[in-house]
Amino acid sequence: MATLKVPACVPSPEEDSQQLKKAFTGLGTDEAAIIGILAHRNGAQRKLIREAYAAAYGEDLLKNLEKELSGDFLHAMLLWTLDRAERDAHLANEATKKMTASNLVIMEIACTRSSHDLFKVRQAYHARYKKSLEEDVAYHTNGDFRKLLVPLVSAFRYEGDEVDIALAKSEAKILQEKISHKAYVDEELIRILTTRSKAQINATLNQYNDHFGNSITKDLKADPKHEYLNFLRATIKCLTSPEKYYEKALRLAINRRGTDESTLTRVVVTQAEVNMEWIKEEYHKRNSVTLEHAIAGDTSGDYEKILLALVGNDNA
Amino acid sequence: MATLKVPACVPSPEEDSQQLKKAFTGLGTDEAAIIGILAHRNGAQRKLIREAYAAAYGEDLLKNLEKELSGDFLHAMLLWTLDRAERDAHLANEATKKMTASNLVIMEIACTRSSHDLFKVRQAYHARYKKSLEEDVAYHTNGDFRKLLVPLVSAFRYEGDEVDIALAKSEAKILQEKISHKAYVDEELIRILTTRSKAQINATLNQYNDHFGNSITKDLKADPKHEYLNFLRATIKCLTSPEKYYEKALRLAINRRGTDESTLTRVVVTQAEVNMEWIKEEYHKRNSVTLEHAIAGDTSGDYEKILLALVGNDNA
Repeated sequence: MATLKVPACVPSPEEDSQQLKKAFTGLGTDEAAIIGILAHRNGAQRKLIREAYAAAYGEDLLKNLEKELSGDFLHAMLLWTLDRAERDAHLANEATKKMTASNLVIMEIACTRSSHDLFKVRQAYHARYKKSLEEDVAYHTNGDFRKLLVPLVSAFRYEGDEVDIALAKSEAKILQEKISHKAYVDEELIRILTTRSKAQINATLNQYNDHFGNSITKDLKADPKHEYLNFLRATIKCLTSPEKYYEKALRLAINRRGTDESTLTRVVVTQAEVNMEWIKEEYHKRNSVTLEHAIAGDTSGDYEKILLALVGNDNA
Repeated sequence: MATLKVPACVPSPEEDSQQLKKAFTGLGTDEAAIIGILAHRNGAQRKLIREAYAAAYGEDLLKNLEKELSGDFLHAMLLWTLDRAERDAHLANEATKKMTASNLVIMEIACTRSSHDLFKVRQAYHARYKKSLEEDVAYHTNGDFRKLLVPLVSAFRYEGDEVDIALAKSEAKILQEKISHKAYVDEELIRILTTRSKAQINATLNQYNDHFGNSITKDLKADPKHEYLNFLRATIKCLTSPEKYYEKALRLAINRRGTDESTLTRVVVTQAEVNMEWIKEEYHKRNSVTLEHAIAGDTSGDYEKILLALVGNDNA
């Protein structure tokens, strides 16, 4: 469930563009007006605003935001204003240019989006970068990470609820054998995690739990310093309990010394229109404070305001 | 260019359905009428006929064809009547159930269809089999073949003409190094062939040719009995010169002792609406007889008639 709040009565894209243009001009920028409009419009509405803005002023709304805003607030506003597929394509592209930590961003996109949404990201990637997503991921990663990441971003998983219990049993056994031999990059293990439907993977991991005494993520905790193992656990979490994965990502981003704004922004912006309500519930349960409270304590100014607007609480 | 011939003036789907129903009823089946209609309608038209048939008679046209026809003729007619994506999903699914020779069928679909058409096959696969194409391919193949096939069917290659010559040079060098060390299943070699756009692969293979004296397919001929090497060569051919790949497939299917109807049907049916005109040219050049002549010499009856109709020559 989304936390984005769209007013019952939305102005026309032309009116919104006009108000945005007004917020950009004159002495100083009216950040509150910009948040008041853009942080309360859904993807389709933001798209129409960008079109109306270009038609009325012959300028790119994103470029004007870039001119007028700055820092974490600008970054959040730019990411938010993009539509979902464009935004994910952008995040993935940025991630391919960086080092291993950003493998997580690519994995997140591959594992938490629906199959059709992931395909739209691949289309947006073609359009924007004149290359394929898997091409860049395969080129810029290597070793064990590549073995898992390339099939993850290339997957078009079946999304039905049907589950084959006999298969779940046999594949749970395969997973247990591989893990007990520390064969964490084994082809069969990767095949199961990268091609099966999420419903089927869930059934397999339930069988694993039932028959081998531990959850698979517990068995994968053998060595907490093993970077690939952490990555593998995160992958499994994204496939089976994305809201728990995101809760932890937010917790770590907020609780560390010096907020990790990049992660905080990414999670809030990408999830506000999708699952943020569930992530907030998880967060509250796990941290005994609300996410709004935590964000308000850790950020400030317009950056704080846009994050709070997106998690559904302008007045936290 | 397609060889399918559609009359300038096409009857309505309702009229076509009526004529088909008439061809099925009474004493004996009117095969000529069935060919006269279905083998002269394009994919969109055949789809409308199936819908009109179901609406008028409450029966599935495919089921009725199955009841009335038989043998190679039936097989060709059924495959032809399906739309392209459904047909490819069906062919791929059949192939996953068989042994290695049928890896070729899966590779053909992955490498000769456009990126969007391949994606449509993956969608049709979900709809029909309640699983993903890559899931079945990964589950039913193994070893070296799997390493190449899974990324091939999962690819969504960029389709623009842009080529990066510096990259082509560096990747040609990688290919040459791997091949000279007989590292035919090397990750980098597979990455290049499974993720780069066809235009980029073509540029890379031109660089290979220019700098290392031989074409890559010649360098891969080291051991003609090496099944995986043959497969790798066929993959490269499908990516760069599909009409040559198909010419050879037809030549082998026709020239062997006892025609290989399965291949003959598959190539004619899948290519009639796409590239058959070029394949026919290649065939004529390479064999000094026309494809029509070769088909007429090697097949008979209604099976011959539908193949000839699809390659654009009812009166060969």
